[in-house]
Amino acid sequence: MVTTTSTLRARVHATLLHSNDSQSGRRWRAFHLFALGSGLLAVAVSSVESLPDLVDRLLALIIVLVAVIFLVEYGLRLWSAPESPRYSGLSDGRARLRWALSATGLIGLLAVVPAFAISISAVKADSDIAAIFCILWILKLSVHAPAMGTLLRVISNERATLSSVLIIFIIVLVTAATATLFFERSGQPDQFGNLPSALWWAVVTLTTTGYGDVVPHTVGGRMVGSVVMVSGILVLALMTGILATGFAEEVRRREYLRVWDQVVKVPMFTELGTVTLSEIVSKLRVRHYPPRFVVVRREEPGDSMFFISEGEVEVRLPREPVRLGQGGFFGEMALLDRLPRSATIVTTQPTTLLVLYASDFYEIAAHIPSLVAAVEKEARRRRQENEAGQVTPSVSP
Amino acid sequence: MVTTTSTLRARVHATLLHSNDSQSGRRWRAFHLFALGSGLLAVAVSSVESLPDLVDRLLALIIVLVAVIFLVEYGLRLWSAPESPRYSGLSDGRARLRWALSATGLIGLLAVVPAFAISISAVKADSDIAAIFCILWILKLSVHAPAMGTLLRVISNERATLSSVLIIFIIVLVTAATATLFFERSGQPDQFGNLPSALWWAVVTLTTTGYGDVVPHTVGGRMVGSVVMVSGILVLALMTGILATGFAEEVRRREYLRVWDQVVKVPMFTELGTVTLSEIVSKLRVRHYPPRFVVVRREEPGDSMFFISEGEVEVRLPREPVRLGQGGFFGEMALLDRLPRSATIVTTQPTTLLVLYASDFYEIAAHIPSLVAAVEKEARRRRQENEAGQVTPSVSP
Amino acid sequence: MVTTTSTLRARVHATLLHSNDSQSGRRWRAFHLFALGSGLLAVAVSSVESLPDLVDRLLALIIVLVAVIFLVEYGLRLWSAPESPRYSGLSDGRARLRWALSATGLIGLLAVVPAFAISISAVKADSDIAAIFCILWILKLSVHAPAMGTLLRVISNERATLSSVLIIFIIVLVTAATATLFFERSGQPDQFGNLPSALWWAVVTLTTTGYGDVVPHTVGGRMVGSVVMVSGILVLALMTGILATGFAEEVRRREYLRVWDQVVKVPMFTELGTVTLSEIVSKLRVRHYPPRFVVVRREEPGDSMFFISEGEVEVRLPREPVRLGQGGFFGEMALLDRLPRSATIVTTQPTTLLVLYASDFYEIAAHIPSLVAAVEKEARRRRQENEAGQVTPSVSP
Amino acid sequence: MVTTTSTLRARVHATLLHSNDSQSGRRWRAFHLFALGSGLLAVAVSSVESLPDLVDRLLALIIVLVAVIFLVEYGLRLWSAPESPRYSGLSDGRARLRWALSATGLIGLLAVVPAFAISISAVKADSDIAAIFCILWILKLSVHAPAMGTLLRVISNERATLSSVLIIFIIVLVTAATATLFFERSGQPDQFGNLPSALWWAVVTLTTTGYGDVVPHTVGGRMVGSVVMVSGILVLALMTGILATGFAEEVRRREYLRVWDQVVKVPMFTELGTVTLSEIVSKLRVRHYPPRFVVVRREEPGDSMFFISEGEVEVRLPREPVRLGQGGFFGEMALLDRLPRSATIVTTQPTTLLVLYASDFYEIAAHIPSLVAAVEKEARRRRQENEAGQVTPSVSP
Repeated sequence: MVTTTSTLRARVHATLLHSNDSQSGRRWRAFHLFALGSGLLAVAVSSVESLPDLVDRLLALIIVLVAVIFLVEYGLRLWSAPESPRYSGLSDGRARLRWALSATGLIGLLAVVPAFAISISAVKADSDIAAIFCILWILKLSVHAPAMGTLLRVISNERATLSSVLIIFIIVLVTAATATLFFERSGQPDQFGNLPSALWWAVVTLTTTGYGDVVPHTVGGRMVGSVVMVSGILVLALMTGILATGFAEEVRRREYLRVWDQVVKVPMFTELGTVTLSEIVSKLRVRHYPPRFVVVRREEPGDSMFFISEGEVEVRLPREPVRLGQGGFFGEMALLDRLPRSATIVTTQPTTLLVLYASDFYEIAAHIPSLVAAVEKEARRRRQENEAGQVTPSVSP
Repeated sequence: MVTTTSTLRARVHATLLHSNDSQSGRRWRAFHLFALGSGLLAVAVSSVESLPDLVDRLLALIIVLVAVIFLVEYGLRLWSAPESPRYSGLSDGRARLRWALSATGLIGLLAVVPAFAISISAVKADSDIAAIFCILWILKLSVHAPAMGTLLRVISNERATLSSVLIIFIIVLVTAATATLFFERSGQPDQFGNLPSALWWAVVTLTTTGYGDVVPHTVGGRMVGSVVMVSGILVLALMTGILATGFAEEVRRREYLRVWDQVVKVPMFTELGTVTLSEIVSKLRVRHYPPRFVVVRREEPGDSMFFISEGEVEVRLPREPVRLGQGGFFGEMALLDRLPRSATIVTTQPTTLLVLYASDFYEIAAHIPSLVAAVEKEARRRRQENEAGQVTPSVSP
Repeated sequence: MVTTTSTLRARVHATLLHSNDSQSGRRWRAFHLFALGSGLLAVAVSSVESLPDLVDRLLALIIVLVAVIFLVEYGLRLWSAPESPRYSGLSDGRARLRWALSATGLIGLLAVVPAFAISISAVKADSDIAAIFCILWILKLSVHAPAMGTLLRVISNERATLSSVLIIFIIVLVTAATATLFFERSGQPDQFGNLPSALWWAVVTLTTTGYGDVVPHTVGGRMVGSVVMVSGILVLALMTGILATGFAEEVRRREYLRVWDQVVKVPMFTELGTVTLSEIVSKLRVRHYPPRFVVVRREEPGDSMFFISEGEVEVRLPREPVRLGQGGFFGEMALLDRLPRSATIVTTQPTTLLVLYASDFYEIAAHIPSLVAAVEKEARRRRQENEAGQVTPSVSP
Repeated sequence: MVTTTSTLRARVHATLLHSNDSQSGRRWRAFHLFALGSGLLAVAVSSVESLPDLVDRLLALIIVLVAVIFLVEYGLRLWSAPESPRYSGLSDGRARLRWALSATGLIGLLAVVPAFAISISAVKADSDIAAIFCILWILKLSVHAPAMGTLLRVISNERATLSSVLIIFIIVLVTAATATLFFERSGQPDQFGNLPSALWWAVVTLTTTGYGDVVPHTVGGRMVGSVVMVSGILVLALMTGILATGFAEEVRRREYLRVWDQVVKVPMFTELGTVTLSEIVSKLRVRHYPPRFVVVRREEPGDSMFFISEGEVEVRLPREPVRLGQGGFFGEMALLDRLPRSATIVTTQPTTLLVLYASDFYEIAAHIPSLVAAVEKEARRRRQENEAGQVTPSVSP
């Protein structure tokens, strides 16, 4: 009995994990995203004043329904909290308490409570309280952004430079606001009467938003304005330069680890030494495909070959289709002979492929002749079998 | 008889292919672009209300004419469909059916049908239906963008990161809209009365578009607005960083293959082994020139040498012009002796050149002395002949 | 007595230095930033007309208080000026005179004088003079931007290219203004009556600010406007491209020196030769952490190892915590065995770590086997001790 | 006599060349830029209607004066045209005729003619003709942008990709305009009545300019607008990505040649073989300094050493200043011992330096020990002499 509960609890915990890549995990995320979207949309529409009563009731129903879904989610997460490795070594009760007091736990609770407060007090959702929901529910959206960690790490790594740009931004802002104040105050006392108003104009101009609610009329004010606009372009260019540089480096690191985790599943690569392997890893790219996805199409030109690290593909050959499983590879003729694809290849299940582009293949060829020799040997065997009219998967037992 | 038709059909099919680089292919594309532009312009102008009747009739005539051109194109494409390698192995009828049901075929049909519906029912084009044309005809424009494939692949490769930025975008949007709603609703019930209106303001502000139709007036609303504008700059910087990184990588791969396809036509390179060749390929750049294009001009400083992979150039020497054909090279003195160009060189036909810049030449020199030796030997011979007053092409039989 | 004064003076001078990283230096900067922010805010708010008298008095008080703080700062800087290496070899009086006449000294003086001029003449701050403060006090903000030097160096290095973009900018501006003048003058004589007005429209449009106060109405003017807007995007893209390229190079150089200054404190690295060291330096990253910061968390996946160049960390092991000091390293198992972190590690004091990411570790492994061997040996020892139930710091005396 | 004229003509031609880096060339360019600026400013101001008569006359005088300067320039350029290597081998008359018919010659003539047409017919400059000037005079500004060639080459290299982005731009534009037309036409017949009007709105929105003169009011129109704004950000990001990538490559090539041209003047480098030299060239940076410029300041931290390729610097040592000329180097102690600068170094004339940053120095050290050894030997000698109290230039005869 205990074992069954534990197993179930472990399964529930795994499904709710956002990094879970299994089918149940993906279905849960799709459902969660749908519920979240519906809920936010309902809150947004319900804030419109003159809706017919029926629509108002319907929207309130949707909001409550979504809140119930989040309540059930909260309960399941609380129940399965002891499965988290973060709380390993603690008793079930303590683990649940610590999860409930963590940021995730508190957000989860807050997202649920007000919905029910409303549904009890009155069925009609008041738009003031509706707005509070939005802020809380929208935070739940962040878990659907897998690359957000990378983005946050880039911003964190570059925080010194970004804050310097921000200080330049503020210096330009205050200087421009003060200068324009001098020029425009006498002519437009309402728009440029005091420093806060002038600062509002400066922000709107420096970000090149340009509402047009406050606009300088004097020659001096327009000259300052022109300088501010050009500075705005410079600030944007500097920020982009900083983030682009940091981003390129971070992406390279992340991709390296993603490839490394897949490469170890391909016997062909693991036979190579660590040094050689490290070089290949930096050249491969990971691609995830859903089932029944056409990876390559017959007669199309190709510039890459593929190694299967997970899943299975079907090679649609004229006589009978052949299946290639984990550790197999295909598409090598596009690289060796620069020929168009000789067959259409389709995934049969969720499949992870490692892509090796032509430009990188030839570079590797110079350093790791053994790998190329292995690929060429297999290619020769396939070509002969192609001529003989039958193809077998490249990974025989 | 059958052979003639087949040959004609193959030629028509090749001409209509968008990747066709021959003269007939290029002329077809220029004509197609002209017809498309005229058609779209006519549709746009005809939607203006108060045009004189004569102009209205003229525009309707142009629209019908363009539709006829697209009808003829549709017919030719349908007829020559069996030539496509994608439908090889199928009977002519089945090939045409499958093409007619493909995306290209359906768009082609839809672009033709309504034009004739109009021209039959009434000569005057109604602007509602005119608008439908636009959307259909504009899709035909996409085939004139050769690098669109690269762009789409970059966006597809970076979709995980881009969607994360989009989610950050939405989170900022909803949070800002909700916060501004609180501050501004009492003062501007018409502009900030409900969440959808506030969201419209937030989108206009976050993208730094700033129409100015809805503007916050309270101090709190302006503070939120300022943060949103700065976030807008950050979002733009992040997106640019992501796309710039992905684009650089994709361009490197595409260029590598383009160069590789040209390098194999130059005997000088093919003599080198695969490893050496792979290194050179990453240093060369492909450039296509029309006939009578001045590639280098006498006495101008130069920083590159050229290898001819297709076509022919004329070296305008004082005594008599000399012609260099496929496999020849020129401009090496700019690299070896840092001298200005000694002669003007002009293409005589559509020519494809491989450019090698000085910075890359010296880098290659360190690793592939044999190539540099060959270039230097030919250069010495030319210099001697220059002094003796005659020059011969670098590739003698 | 003399010695005591000198020591105190040296300590004061060191604390006021903006590059000082000690605790007293950091506290001084935080206090300075707070005073500056309060002062600027008070100046900004006091420029609003209709404030109650009490608030006006309070703001005046804050402004005077901040001015006193800056006066004391000015006095301390003047007194400790002889400690600066820039004035070494000069007498105390001459050193102070030269500092007082330097840019920093003059700004310091100017920021103090007007505040007292106001506070003597009248307690109520006049907003005209208040504005002058802003410009002077805002300049003091620039010392809080550590990366501003890098940004200025990038702009200085790229000044030739940036000024070329600026000239393109001006050419587009004047051409567009002239062309629009022709189209719009007859219809909007007030908005497009003369060239300066048309130039204002062109700046607002080319920077894509778009106030909307001046908008073309004719077809010709709108066409010119469309081209200007697209040019605006191109100009922005060019500027970003220039700054991004320059920035990446400058950051690489700055980071190299920062790492080099830390690497020499780690005995493990200094044993390597200069050539090997130079290669490692380009792979490491410097990270500063405050006390009690969780560097790695138990059970989380890791992609980096850390070397301690300054400070101390606590390894929170099940039995008893272990401390690692300068020269120690941790997190190597994430790289060697791709395992999650085996313990939570927290800093006990301000600590500087050198981060080595997995992708770079494997690359180094190929070239410097001795380093990897040392890391592996220590890792093996730790694992055995882990199993035996006790861990000792990696740097034993 | 003939020789004198030829020499003078050659000198005039050299001075007027825009790439001329001598003192007379630089002075000419400064004067030309000043005259051009004054002229354009005068034209702009004279287009204002209600100026006093005296100002009007003064402006007309300035315009005529600038036109006279341009006339003299035109005459000198025409006279010295035969000196251009582009027309070598032609008679003086033919050379001048061909220059007069070249783009530069025609622009020069057109910029002069209308100015005199006005000054003859009437002294008051009519603003219509004034506008023509602007377009012609502004073209002369382009010669003051030295990096414009690089920018144009980047745009030319990336034209295929840029035009694809432009086509995407047009497709989004037309689709959005058509869709918004449907939603908004009934509500705002004046703003969204026909396709050209809707296209104007789409351009203003897609470039995120956002004048606000035409704004969608319906929910559907606002949704389309939101998508267009986000697409605008994407288009901008794509363009930036394309130009940034192309720009980085082009800058690397240009810098390589600039360094190469300077490196050959330093004996220390020319002794190295071509292969070694090529590697060093890619690490050095060229910097031009005016006379009396402080290159390094005593006691400041340094991260680079300098080689003098042209000009002279003064090392301000305690006892007596020492001068270093072409081929000398300084600042090596910052790299070898990570010490602050031991002396202030100032240029005595226009000087060109080659900068070698620390990060690159150590990289080079690994491959070219001989260079480092030479630097170290000289550094040792200087240190000894520093201790002995006297320093001699590093390049002794």
